Amino acid sequence: MASAEIVSIGTELLLGQILDTNSQFISNELANLGIDCMFKSTVGDNMERIVATLALALSRSDVVITTGGLGPTADDLTHESMAELFKVPMVMDEKVLEHIQGIFQRLGIKMVDSNKKQATRPHGADILPNPTGTAPGIIWTLKADTLQKIDIKDCERNRYILTFPGVPSEMTRMWEETAAPFLAKAFDSSVVWSQELKHFGIGESNLAEKYGELLHGSNPTVAPLAGTGECRLRVSAKASSVEEAKRIAMPVIEKIKTESGYLCYGIDKDVLESVVARLLIEKKFTLSAAESCTGGLLSKRLTDIPGSSAFTRLNLVTYANEAKHDFLGVDQNILDQHGAVSAECARAMAEGARKIGKADIGIGITGVAGPDGGTEEKPVGLVYMGLAAGNETFVLKKIFPERMGRNGIRMRASNEALNMVRVFLLYPEMMRSDDKVLRYA
Amino acid sequence: MASAEIVSIGTELLLGQILDTNSQFISNELANLGIDCMFKSTVGDNMERIVATLALALSRSDVVITTGGLGPTADDLTHESMAELFKVPMVMDEKVLEHIQGIFQRLGIKMVDSNKKQATRPHGADILPNPTGTAPGIIWTLKADTLQKIDIKDCERNRYILTFPGVPSEMTRMWEETAAPFLAKAFDSSVVWSQELKHFGIGESNLAEKYGELLHGSNPTVAPLAGTGECRLRVSAKASSVEEAKRIAMPVIEKIKTESGYLCYGIDKDVLESVVARLLIEKKFTLSAAESCTGGLLSKRLTDIPGSSAFTRLNLVTYANEAKHDFLGVDQNILDQHGAVSAECARAMAEGARKIGKADIGIGITGVAGPDGGTEEKPVGLVYMGLAAGNETFVLKKIFPERMGRNGIRMRASNEALNMVRVFLLYPEMMRSDDKVLRYA
Repeated sequence: MASAEIVSIGTELLLGQILDTNSQFISNELANLGIDCMFKSTVGDNMERIVATLALALSRSDVVITTGGLGPTADDLTHESMAELFKVPMVMDEKVLEHIQGIFQRLGIKMVDSNKKQATRPHGADILPNPTGTAPGIIWTLKADTLQKIDIKDCERNRYILTFPGVPSEMTRMWEETAAPFLAKAFDSSVVWSQELKHFGIGESNLAEKYGELLHGSNPTVAPLAGTGECRLRVSAKASSVEEAKRIAMPVIEKIKTESGYLCYGIDKDVLESVVARLLIEKKFTLSAAESCTGGLLSKRLTDIPGSSAFTRLNLVTYANEAKHDFLGVDQNILDQHGAVSAECARAMAEGARKIGKADIGIGITGVAGPDGGTEEKPVGLVYMGLAAGNETFVLKKIFPERMGRNGIRMRASNEALNMVRVFLLYPEMMRSDDKVLRYA
Repeated sequence: MASAEIVSIGTELLLGQILDTNSQFISNELANLGIDCMFKSTVGDNMERIVATLALALSRSDVVITTGGLGPTADDLTHESMAELFKVPMVMDEKVLEHIQGIFQRLGIKMVDSNKKQATRPHGADILPNPTGTAPGIIWTLKADTLQKIDIKDCERNRYILTFPGVPSEMTRMWEETAAPFLAKAFDSSVVWSQELKHFGIGESNLAEKYGELLHGSNPTVAPLAGTGECRLRVSAKASSVEEAKRIAMPVIEKIKTESGYLCYGIDKDVLESVVARLLIEKKFTLSAAESCTGGLLSKRLTDIPGSSAFTRLNLVTYANEAKHDFLGVDQNILDQHGAVSAECARAMAEGARKIGKADIGIGITGVAGPDGGTEEKPVGLVYMGLAAGNETFVLKKIFPERMGRNGIRMRASNEALNMVRVFLLYPEMMRSDDKVLRYA
């Protein structure tokens, strides 16, 4: 199996000014290609340290992938460090120069001399085109004679360097269009196929306990991964082809899906909002939400999904009590006697949203997101979620730990509301169960 | 100046299953402590490779900080690898064992034998307490005799290992309560103080051009950093004290603020929504938003800010044309003749939101977020933002590149709407200027 190493270059990464999402993307892609990512390194804009990091990486991995350090300024040193490592000159690439000049022309911006630097590459390396930016990368196929220059002796097969700019949108496009096909061809290695089974309403340790035996398997492997209020089980199989790997993984995936039942809400890129959106569209149901403490987060998440106009007509953020009364028709007595943060108010909000939104399902969310506004009786983290449909209204009460913070509490509350819609649409009988996880009232 | 290196441990990081936010947090904290972070490495759950990575890190840095690999399962090997590296036994820490037993007792969960592993530490290392979890870290002060075991010869001063679990909330609390004070005491080194000046409405290259000369300074240094539709200038100064570093940085910061004018919207942790919220609260203005394509994102962002109830009463997500007509009073003629995505509709939505929300400022956003629904006349990315206040309504038209994707377009549209409120509140004269960046109509 081929091995790879990712080197992220840029002092801003070492200072923590930006988050390295590129290396996560590349790691994921390498796993899908069946290439073992063994190490990741981050190094600043310093030629000596970049050279040392590259030399170490090439000594232990078949492929070295770098991001960053391809800009036009003097502190962008990625290609220059590679030329230094292999003692080759930097050469101007006329085609790249034309491409860069074209970009500046189209933008109507004067090209400055420093941008010409981006059209140079180490002698011997090929260009990895960047269709959307001025910083192309390189693909450098390193053969035995080149590798011997840096004292790598046992090189019966080629090693490779691929470089990318740090801008994520440029990097991902370059990866997908050029790098991934190149690597797939270069390494005709075994394939890993995996699927993540996403769970809601069960924690990592309980899930690990439930599937204890499966976690010790070797092919497929099953690994629990914790997320924010959800938990994933990743089932991965290795084989000579994707079909074969799928065939190995599928029985385990089916077994987990059956045993998890309503706790498993989706796979891979599914998120609660995409699952709920799909269900609403399939069943031709409309939904209207009235949010207080979540302030529009539920509406934002549902409309993140393309096609959400099929089920969304009107959502409301009724923050003030007056707005709850005037627009949703929440009874003044409820607000006076029980307060805005109460099961009664969540119920009335859900029913009001359903009525004025003329929707099949109404949702109401009210709670204390904090950091202020908590009392002993109604602490920060207390949230009520209501769901009105048909002749029934259900209310779920949750007390999220205050330490989750305002955003954490809002996120968890919107998760619970989405999950409530999902359970209602798929497992309506569960809405009346005395299951500990649901506790609908 | 002391040097540090961060080692992130976990195969899930190499597979790209999770994003390493911990190392960004620590990088940032090290910079604030004036400790130079020289490298970051990521390695999987493999003892040989962990040992090799630690040995390399200790050979070149004064402090090695690890995250991850402290869990109860057999693949959690961080402390075991350190014991292996220095050839010392793992010993049980009775105090930690009691702490862990206490956590399980309070949770009412049976403690399994594997959890006892988390109460062990390499002989010679001290415990770094984890108040909120079952995985404590260690602080290991490595003196000359210990360092010689791994062939580090020139060790006139101590080196240090600090370990943290991978769970971000546990790690940050342990950092703040124990690690940061420890490191501040251990290294009485020079201090870096920096401030980021956040800009909106100007790109990185234009900003770099505008402040070309400042970018070549050495103390303070000025570095441009690109973000999503915004750009930051980081001004950093080094000195023997924070006060002295501030004194060095301040003249440059003031110069930039003055020259940037309305383009600079805040500093450091300011975001557009926090700046707008602060202004609304200060000026005792209320705001009501009617969103179509942004689907609640603007409302969500404004209510992210604690205290937003001071200016938020009612926001609406009027996705359907009928909802725009029924609730906001958008004239049917506008919808028929100009369509929902039009300057006229944005204007009517802003005015309608202001009226029914009884607010000082009304906002309307309507556009094509994609991926579907674009036409030649109204492409994906076309968004109109309206602002109604006093007797006036302003409309801003933007065409965001389709390649930004649905979420990118929605984010940028909400940015523009927030910036519009900011400019209206702080620089009302700009609303009528023919400035290229604003282009309000």
